[in-house]
Amino acid sequence: MVDKELIAAVAKSEGIASAALERSVTSGRAVIVKNARRDIVPLGIGEGLRTKINVNLGTSPAKTDIEEELEKVLVAIKYGADTVMDLSTGSDIDGTRRRLLKECSIPLGTVPVYQSFKLAEHPKTDIGTLLKVIEKHCEDGTDFVTLHCGLTKASIPLIKKRLMGVVSRGGALLVKWMDDNGKENPLYEHFDDVLEILKEYEVVISLGDGLRPGCLKDASDAAQLHELNVLGQLTKRARAAGVQVIIEGPGHVPLNQIEFNVTEQKRICDGAPFYVLGPLVTDIAPGYDHITAAIGGTLAAYYGVDYLCAVSPKEHLGLPNVEDIKIATVTSKIAAHAADIAKGLPGARKWDDEMSQARADLDWEKMFKLAVDPETARRFRKECPHVDSDVCSMCGEFCSVKISKGLLRSDHGKK
Amino acid sequence: MVDKELIAAVAKSEGIASAALERSVTSGRAVIVKNARRDIVPLGIGEGLRTKINVNLGTSPAKTDIEEELEKVLVAIKYGADTVMDLSTGSDIDGTRRRLLKECSIPLGTVPVYQSFKLAEHPKTDIGTLLKVIEKHCEDGTDFVTLHCGLTKASIPLIKKRLMGVVSRGGALLVKWMDDNGKENPLYEHFDDVLEILKEYEVVISLGDGLRPGCLKDASDAAQLHELNVLGQLTKRARAAGVQVIIEGPGHVPLNQIEFNVTEQKRICDGAPFYVLGPLVTDIAPGYDHITAAIGGTLAAYYGVDYLCAVSPKEHLGLPNVEDIKIATVTSKIAAHAADIAKGLPGARKWDDEMSQARADLDWEKMFKLAVDPETARRFRKECPHVDSDVCSMCGEFCSVKISKGLLRSDHGKK
Repeated sequence: MVDKELIAAVAKSEGIASAALERSVTSGRAVIVKNARRDIVPLGIGEGLRTKINVNLGTSPAKTDIEEELEKVLVAIKYGADTVMDLSTGSDIDGTRRRLLKECSIPLGTVPVYQSFKLAEHPKTDIGTLLKVIEKHCEDGTDFVTLHCGLTKASIPLIKKRLMGVVSRGGALLVKWMDDNGKENPLYEHFDDVLEILKEYEVVISLGDGLRPGCLKDASDAAQLHELNVLGQLTKRARAAGVQVIIEGPGHVPLNQIEFNVTEQKRICDGAPFYVLGPLVTDIAPGYDHITAAIGGTLAAYYGVDYLCAVSPKEHLGLPNVEDIKIATVTSKIAAHAADIAKGLPGARKWDDEMSQARADLDWEKMFKLAVDPETARRFRKECPHVDSDVCSMCGEFCSVKISKGLLRSDHGKK
Repeated sequence: MVDKELIAAVAKSEGIASAALERSVTSGRAVIVKNARRDIVPLGIGEGLRTKINVNLGTSPAKTDIEEELEKVLVAIKYGADTVMDLSTGSDIDGTRRRLLKECSIPLGTVPVYQSFKLAEHPKTDIGTLLKVIEKHCEDGTDFVTLHCGLTKASIPLIKKRLMGVVSRGGALLVKWMDDNGKENPLYEHFDDVLEILKEYEVVISLGDGLRPGCLKDASDAAQLHELNVLGQLTKRARAAGVQVIIEGPGHVPLNQIEFNVTEQKRICDGAPFYVLGPLVTDIAPGYDHITAAIGGTLAAYYGVDYLCAVSPKEHLGLPNVEDIKIATVTSKIAAHAADIAKGLPGARKWDDEMSQARADLDWEKMFKLAVDPETARRFRKECPHVDSDVCSMCGEFCSVKISKGLLRSDHGKK
């Protein structure tokens, strides 16, 4: 189903055998992301591949500045994003998406539901509008779309037992629509029509978790697991229709429930790549949720999550600016890389060993060059009290590395 | 051995039964930190207790500004530090320590070796100088001291196999001393004399890990484990001498080796409280090592580490300033708290549930009040594009919480 040339290109960039990747893609345990109409390097996500990171950006009703969003795309790419998602809900959603697609060299995803619900007032939108928007996004070149197809009417009583209800934007819009109209989720009812469009453009479906928990108390609850079970069924249908599938996951999850969440998703969704927002391991840290997400994300990826969504320090507080996007990207990159090391992904630790050799040599230029964020590392060293030597201001003459270096050298001399 | 009144005070502050804490303290699985001469609230660290965090500060040869160090102490306390360590190596080490002890309301630790090696040039220092400095620190009121007593001559050949050698300052000074003089570590040889002093002042010994790995490649290596085994023997001797013991641990450790490191320490050191610097789960993130440490620290505490040392964003780059201390403290607090939730510590999640209720209510003032760093949360919301309502600029009218709130309310109406 996926072009052999695309598979070969991805296998090469990952440094693995094409045949192994082909098996993973054929079984749906890995996906290749690239809209048939886009001229970008294809990206692999899933089994046996490097953990990928996505960075969310986009305008909001409070602010539409396409140039700033473009800058966010470039910053995300610079610091290691594998994909970006344009979650724009401001003015000129079409213009924003098209401009970003034109300038962005990596896969770009969208959430068409936002625009559908913006075009037609909530209770009035219908499957016709939804399909039209989805097709427009695909025609424009969107490489993957998040669609909350597994959020069904049956889950509404379960949602009402929650502390935080629905915290997914797309999920909340759909639940409100179902509640207002007394009808089933149109993306669930017309799933085959959705798949037909995606197949035509070779767009990957990222099955959204409209019921991801928005607080620790709601984690792994009946509402979340109900939706996950529906996503398991939809995974089979999408694969049968020739559409590649990614599954989205939580959310706010205590550290001790992360392994359960990953193994359940893999079991229920037959090994489909798992894409998580977080998991955030505590609710008490607005302003630091890039960190609460990195803690959970590293462990999640270690247990088998394939794709992490970066979380901005402004999560729960407001729209991220360019600096927030940078911090979110770097932090997510750290989580993905740390997990790849722990999983024993071949070659993952080479970067660390090179950095450590530069540290042992007190070779500052090389340390900066190898740092996940060279500018910040250089600036931090400069900000510190001046030291007239190869050591840093933390220890000065007490530098253990310098002492240790002398010790190791003296030994080499003796031999 | 430990005063019952101290145990009762700690049990009360932790919300647990005195009898349970007394059993933990008697067996050495928990310690009570407070110098007999200090007038502070005693602190418990270990089995069944909230995960504690320490914040390192102090002058360096490049900068001595006691007022700034005092500000660091206050900031650390404000953001949740349970202890601070004065690692000063600048001018007037005695004056700095005494001033900090006077102003600091929480337990304060030191590393006497720094001052000993500053007083006498490296090869010339001796056990007399070391013991004199240790006693002076104890007399002044230091509540716990880090001493690298387990770093023995036998480990030197093992160190020479390492990529990063010795990255502990105290460890490097001692290894150099042993190498220069061809003699055994005086703190190991004269361990009983050291214990005698500590016992007199009821000072806890934190057995330093001079050979903690400084890079992933050196993690869990023979040098590290050799020292850990010596620390296991010293633990027994210290307990027999009536001195409470904490064990220090790594360092740079890949995520998949963290559980091993914790279970080995607990096994070898007979359940003594474990105090770790990190663990840092990747080497490539100078400028973000508060985050690499939080990732490892959360998992370590979940597996049984009792005490986390905050890591500053400037780690590997220079001396932290007040802002770095704040970020380090908050990040470490997040790690400790997330671990306590995951461990199921009674009451730990109450804070999160209150925050989530405030979120569900869109009660911003309450969210700020409950945030681990209220000022940053408030500033971040203010920095974002203005929104004329109770939502935030991330989603605006698309606010899932607001939609969800309406939905849950409408249901309540129907009932």
